[in-house]
Amino acid sequence: MITDIINKKRLGEELSYHELDEFFNGYLDGKVKDYQMSSLLMAICINGMTEEETFSLTKIFIDSGDTLDLSFIPGTVVDKHSTGGIGDKTTLIIAPIVASLGIPILKMSGRGLGYTGGTIDKLESISGYRVDLSDDEVMKQVQDIGIVITGQTASLAPMDKEIYALRDVTATVSSIPLIATSIMSKKIAGGADKILIDIKVGNGALLRTKEEAQELSCLMKKIGQVYQKDVHTIISDMNTPLGFCIGNSLEVMEAIRVLKGEEFGNNLTKLCIDLSTELVCMAKGILPQDAQDMVLNAINSGAAYQKFLQLVKAQQGNLDNLVVSKKYKEIKASKSGVIESISAIRLGELSVSLGAGRVSKEDSIDYGVGIELKKQLGDSVKHGEVLARVYYKKVPRLQEYEDIFTIR
Amino acid sequence: MITDIINKKRLGEELSYHELDEFFNGYLDGKVKDYQMSSLLMAICINGMTEEETFSLTKIFIDSGDTLDLSFIPGTVVDKHSTGGIGDKTTLIIAPIVASLGIPILKMSGRGLGYTGGTIDKLESISGYRVDLSDDEVMKQVQDIGIVITGQTASLAPMDKEIYALRDVTATVSSIPLIATSIMSKKIAGGADKILIDIKVGNGALLRTKEEAQELSCLMKKIGQVYQKDVHTIISDMNTPLGFCIGNSLEVMEAIRVLKGEEFGNNLTKLCIDLSTELVCMAKGILPQDAQDMVLNAINSGAAYQKFLQLVKAQQGNLDNLVVSKKYKEIKASKSGVIESISAIRLGELSVSLGAGRVSKEDSIDYGVGIELKKQLGDSVKHGEVLARVYYKKVPRLQEYEDIFTIR
Repeated sequence: MITDIINKKRLGEELSYHELDEFFNGYLDGKVKDYQMSSLLMAICINGMTEEETFSLTKIFIDSGDTLDLSFIPGTVVDKHSTGGIGDKTTLIIAPIVASLGIPILKMSGRGLGYTGGTIDKLESISGYRVDLSDDEVMKQVQDIGIVITGQTASLAPMDKEIYALRDVTATVSSIPLIATSIMSKKIAGGADKILIDIKVGNGALLRTKEEAQELSCLMKKIGQVYQKDVHTIISDMNTPLGFCIGNSLEVMEAIRVLKGEEFGNNLTKLCIDLSTELVCMAKGILPQDAQDMVLNAINSGAAYQKFLQLVKAQQGNLDNLVVSKKYKEIKASKSGVIESISAIRLGELSVSLGAGRVSKEDSIDYGVGIELKKQLGDSVKHGEVLARVYYKKVPRLQEYEDIFTIR
Repeated sequence: MITDIINKKRLGEELSYHELDEFFNGYLDGKVKDYQMSSLLMAICINGMTEEETFSLTKIFIDSGDTLDLSFIPGTVVDKHSTGGIGDKTTLIIAPIVASLGIPILKMSGRGLGYTGGTIDKLESISGYRVDLSDDEVMKQVQDIGIVITGQTASLAPMDKEIYALRDVTATVSSIPLIATSIMSKKIAGGADKILIDIKVGNGALLRTKEEAQELSCLMKKIGQVYQKDVHTIISDMNTPLGFCIGNSLEVMEAIRVLKGEEFGNNLTKLCIDLSTELVCMAKGILPQDAQDMVLNAINSGAAYQKFLQLVKAQQGNLDNLVVSKKYKEIKASKSGVIESISAIRLGELSVSLGAGRVSKEDSIDYGVGIELKKQLGDSVKHGEVLARVYYKKVPRLQEYEDIFTIR
């Protein structure tokens, strides 16, 4: 009985593959109701899942849809995933870098929900850019130009989509086994040979502590082993936003500046170089120093930027129409001193309040609104100096966000 | 935000009155969805609630409807509640006993769900018996004849009804604070001065251990204090069913036999005398021995039975048509020895499979099916001797219930 399965997990017992299968596939069939699924998900959030249960559930998610077969593509196909953060436009930068180095990359991305933006929303700020490629189109494009960034196709791990939507509105997102299942089922179904996961930790991320990040890392690697997939992870900070821009068009513009080599030395560029270097090492089996040289050269030679333009063109985007709202307000320093923190979570909240993100799945997005930071962590500022510019359509209540910057 | 409230409880934090109010009343308003409520309920089941939270939630439940004002009735009005068990027809016996002693009793009962029967279902096996009295009818009848047993009126703690239905299908029933809130909100809204709760413990009950029962007892008394209601509890065994009969008509017939003084010495009669004695002590403030003498006299004089007949007549029931299925099978002893256990839970499961109870809220009930035990705990039996008679409409698979009796 359905409630017996929930009861077992409520009591902290282990569920069998058969029980998980009955419950989760019963959900897709309509036999298990939303309110029963959310009850089980909460019990999992609090009482956890064993590794065996996590492997079972990942298999059930993968088996709910197709698995792409990319064996016809020569070389090692890599994939990269971020657990999500504020100002995280790394995919837009890394994918063209590695593709320009001859490493095929097939990236299926999601939309933003909650305070973290989604790569697909960012790409949709480029007018005409198609994010709904079919499996066939995906395979053709990765063969033709070695790079694809599109939305999750409906045929891969469809169960994850259903469950994720429910988790988001029932406060059952923060579960390491559920996060691992969700990410790994999509990545494995996506067919890449090697997978790099950027695990974010901090106030602007799903995970708040390094211990949780390490646990997730370990679990995802173990799931990878079951499917003979090489999984690498990088744990990176998300207390401070990545780069200077938050908001869809603004982030695409910033990504372009990084690809053009105009933005060295900040946390965004540094992370993109690290992640790209790791991907090159994984794909080519070379030393990190050599890989990093290749990555830097891809930027400095313009090859990475050209690959980005090729990607946008292939997916029918037009960069000429990228727009940012003309109306803006400024956040100014309330005193002189050194910037000690820039809160990622508070910037995420401000950006959602501006309309750059979604509170519920049905919300539409303003691509032209967002925040541009004018100062970085550690910068000295004077009283009254501009810290950030806030681009808006509807006048924001900035007085509620005075705690974004801490100055000492 | 709704999910922030769920998240707080997921992390084991205390919710404020305001947060609980927003969430639970939001549920009645349709702003909080079923799947969000079940997620919070599961978090409460696992992480618990503080006393303060339990008091808040009880208040919210009470305030969701009316509270009966019984102050116009002379004397102390008592109420009695059982947390539910197999073969528990005590209300049908106790209420007439105490009413025949001049103590007004107003009992609003529920339907059975899961393996435990409900008093209202039992009363509905009496043709014509009305279980849907209005608040006005209830008050008039308690004034006229000092006894009412009816269904929970829609106006009292309506939130409990909604929440209970959801708990039942989401495996979120087993939570001591939620059980306390559910019972006490109904009892307090019901308006009685003094309340007696029969807390069942055992394999056929919601609570499995005496420790849990004591915790529930303590919590309900504390809630009573908040409302200046005197709450007494009795903790009683539910590993073995109460009496000999399980099934609706069968249980009404058994209750009549007890009221007529034909069934002394078994666990049902003993518990009924204990509970009635406690109620008489509570209402009249007399010594237990004197109260018990009064109770025994109410049975032996026929006064309790006459009060029962008066109750049935007042609520338009006709006892002439009580029917039990003519088809039956027998469970026989597989060996000679002494009966060491009679499993309440397994008898509950068998009775539901016969159609005497409900699996889901929409199921209808066969009033004429059930089980009549022919032996008691501790009886010596011979191989092949009849242990129980199973009255059915659709042939039961008795071979699946061979574990009901343990013989040594």
